[in-house]
Amino acid sequence: MSGAHFTLDARLKADTRPVAALSLCDLLLMNDARYPWLILVPRQAGCVEILDLPDEARTALWQEIQQVAAALRDVSCCDKLNIGALGNSVRQLHVHVIARMEGDAAWPGPVWGHGRAEPYANGDAQSLMHALRQRLGVAA
Amino acid sequence: MSGAHFTLDARLKADTRPVAALSLCDLLLMNDARYPWLILVPRQAGCVEILDLPDEARTALWQEIQQVAAALRDVSCCDKLNIGALGNSVRQLHVHVIARMEGDAAWPGPVWGHGRAEPYANGDAQSLMHALRQRLGVAA
Repeated sequence: MSGAHFTLDARLKADTRPVAALSLCDLLLMNDARYPWLILVPRQAGCVEILDLPDEARTALWQEIQQVAAALRDVSCCDKLNIGALGNSVRQLHVHVIARMEGDAAWPGPVWGHGRAEPYANGDAQSLMHALRQRLGVAA
Repeated sequence: MSGAHFTLDARLKADTRPVAALSLCDLLLMNDARYPWLILVPRQAGCVEILDLPDEARTALWQEIQQVAAALRDVSCCDKLNIGALGNSVRQLHVHVIARMEGDAAWPGPVWGHGRAEPYANGDAQSLMHALRQRLGVAA
């Protein structure tokens, strides 16, 4: 798919806010106040599986997953990180990095498909995004 | 936790069959015929998050995830791979690599927490494990 132009999937775009553009991935925050929930989307057209990425991009994806997971853990003080690449509904390759708290809305089950998203209160998403950008050392 | 002795978590042991010992991880097959479902467990005592692993082991884990995912895709001819590190219930670090088929028992939702495991019919688990070992070039 080289040469094809990357465009963020419409559903991912509708469900998230942009946090930052990392070297490989767009970093997004899910519009769901129940959990601090980030999504990494490699800006590579036509990729569905991690295995579809070229070698270098797979290495870069792993680095960015770890950077984002460490930042999210620090900022959220979560009890557990959940990291996953599913893509059963939205096929564009994306990786979830979610901060879980014991007793949160879906605990101890997975967040995917559990109930309805709850909107962030005024300013809360911005505060979280600001803290994440500072921790990652990146601009908006 | 260096120096501590690695022991496979009792629940992981009860729910799976051993497929192979890879360089870093024990590779296990879930006792659930609904989905070809593999679990990688790094033989490192005391790790809960991927971030807890030393740098070299994190790189090795990523390599083994990719090797196992490629083998499982080839052997299962699945529609989608699901890869995830959750660990909300079993805290010992482990990574799921699951072959999903459109219309399978949990489709398009996640497999975790969905219904009850179904036993493999006689010989089916052995056939799958044999095919995986051949594709991975490893012994039992």
